Amino acid sequence: MTVLDFSKLDGLVPAVAQDWETGEVLMVAFMNSEAWERTLSTGLMHYWSRSRRALWKKGESSGNAQEVRELRVDCDGDSVLAKVRQIGGAACHTGYRSCFHRVVEGGAVRLDGVKVFDPAEKYGGKA
Amino acid sequence: MTVLDFSKLDGLVPAVAQDWETGEVLMVAFMNSEAWERTLSTGLMHYWSRSRRALWKKGESSGNAQEVRELRVDCDGDSVLAKVRQIGGAACHTGYRSCFHRVVEGGAVRLDGVKVFDPAEKYGGKA
Repeated sequence: MTVLDFSKLDGLVPAVAQDWETGEVLMVAFMNSEAWERTLSTGLMHYWSRSRRALWKKGESSGNAQEVRELRVDCDGDSVLAKVRQIGGAACHTGYRSCFHRVVEGGAVRLDGVKVFDPAEKYGGKA
Repeated sequence: MTVLDFSKLDGLVPAVAQDWETGEVLMVAFMNSEAWERTLSTGLMHYWSRSRRALWKKGESSGNAQEVRELRVDCDGDSVLAKVRQIGGAACHTGYRSCFHRVVEGGAVRLDGVKVFDPAEKYGGKA
């Protein structure tokens, strides 16, 4: 399905995962065409990991998968908005519900978010 | 302020604008370091226009600026979430409130969004 233009960013588009119930923005990552197609066919969020240079099924190692509730594309077809059900309650590898748990204000960064798990416990100190 | 890592994407990071009251995701665009600094210093959203290769003060031509209510950065500092007050009620040049007014389902695209203005009227047929 060719609703997305992957040509603007070397084969990638940014994808926003938003909690389908609360509207909280959980994370931003990238999809290539394979990640998009897998997301469509499986109903589970797939991204392209830029650091590992590999297809990344969200939650593959953590168990914290994302079930697709709705997929949207933007006006010029170069980004994705996914409304998801976040399995395990946390999108972030740090244990926070959202990766956006850092507020920038007055020249400083303040933590503001719900921590759902302890990464040291979950990953045995590897996170 | 160096909370962002612009090195992963040739000097850019994706930035999500979210309505600060309703939680609706309005658009995704990109910021370079100058756009980020201008956003911080002015309280108005600035992006980097990839098509024009220029700093882009949102609403500069349309009047539909975005006032910053809160700025967040993600866990690894490579994307921005901005909660904004959308002046004029529409973020999208097509006249829709959100750029994400196209839902992908069952192999088709369905329009779903609130249209706030008629671009032909607003831009004299140039949109």
